Amino acid sequence: MARVSQEHLDARRRQIIDGARRVFTRRGFHATSMQDILKETGLSAGAVYRYFRGKDEIIAAVADGAFTALREAFLSAVRDEPLRPLEDVLSGVIAMALEEEGPGGEQPAGPMAGQAFPQLVLQVWGEALGSEPLSEILHNGYKGMREAWGELIGAYQEAGVLRSDVPADDIARALIAMCQGLLAQHALFGNITSDVLRNGLRALLTADPAKLPTATEAAATA
Amino acid sequence: MARVSQEHLDARRRQIIDGARRVFTRRGFHATSMQDILKETGLSAGAVYRYFRGKDEIIAAVADGAFTALREAFLSAVRDEPLRPLEDVLSGVIAMALEEEGPGGEQPAGPMAGQAFPQLVLQVWGEALGSEPLSEILHNGYKGMREAWGELIGAYQEAGVLRSDVPADDIARALIAMCQGLLAQHALFGNITSDVLRNGLRALLTADPAKLPTATEAAATA
Repeated sequence: MARVSQEHLDARRRQIIDGARRVFTRRGFHATSMQDILKETGLSAGAVYRYFRGKDEIIAAVADGAFTALREAFLSAVRDEPLRPLEDVLSGVIAMALEEEGPGGEQPAGPMAGQAFPQLVLQVWGEALGSEPLSEILHNGYKGMREAWGELIGAYQEAGVLRSDVPADDIARALIAMCQGLLAQHALFGNITSDVLRNGLRALLTADPAKLPTATEAAATA
Repeated sequence: MARVSQEHLDARRRQIIDGARRVFTRRGFHATSMQDILKETGLSAGAVYRYFRGKDEIIAAVADGAFTALREAFLSAVRDEPLRPLEDVLSGVIAMALEEEGPGGEQPAGPMAGQAFPQLVLQVWGEALGSEPLSEILHNGYKGMREAWGELIGAYQEAGVLRSDVPADDIARALIAMCQGLLAQHALFGNITSDVLRNGLRALLTADPAKLPTATEAAATA
């Protein structure tokens, strides 16, 4: 038996995951059979089962790849120096996820390529409700994002852009939620661009709550 | 054959939808059979098929009920006078959806009762990707929410709380996204309260973007 390099093993594994992602995206997790995956990848059953015990393990690997890519986009936004307007940071992340343009004007490649990333995310969410391994992948990804975003928010709080008497984690979760919801809207209705996020968030960040009649009254009696 | 009143027909239809929602919530759409629904409702196949041609029609009816309830919560927030702080309005809607407390301190009943409303929403999203009727229900619900929230945002713009040079629809979609994302986080991770939204949104609405070094520079050179 020929010696097989780690590089070859990794490439083969990637070939299976990429093919499975394509067919999952077209047909959905439930309507996709192992036969469909074999056909898409052009590999034999023996070759695929060497890497994965079944469809559930392949779904988990596809989800893991997708969320790693999304987390990387978030993390790279966090590493930006100096602080940019928050709406620009978030709309950059969403632009990558919605695949308008990758950083440097290139189309993102890998797990975030193709129109269907938001739909894949929605499928994974639905599936995770009944799958322990998928749920664990999502938990870990969410934990990482909360921590990374919490750090970023802390920097805005330190600069005085965001108030410091609110837990950074609450702000992080609200902003992550906005990104998640826009992904859901794009997956379901297909008409979201990152401009919606940039405009909407800019309007919130430049609000003037003092103009609110009741807020003024409340402040006067506080 | 006995004459059957419209009231009786409506009650029977509701009994099927309520039972189906319970079993969908426990087992998921895919793992639930018509047999499970018959068992849960205690009705015969003949009785159920008189109202619904199959599981897909029941899923659509359950989804329709759930989104009508959510839309009602949004619409009732819109009808509030005078304008309240935006973070209070949104956290009220989320509190209903997460079922902390309904309006007036009561637990909400009907399609939003039980812990599992956010999980049902996530299942519907995943299912809608491959179902024309479900997708149409979601499209209509989203359209109605955007309109209602667009109106509300317009009122805040008129009062000077939110800037008027950003489309109200963009702000509406960003805020709807935040609610959707928090529902997703609650369904997947189960640790969200409406306080997260109230705190996070309050911090955004009271931000001071002028404190941002780059924003100040950009303004100076603009």
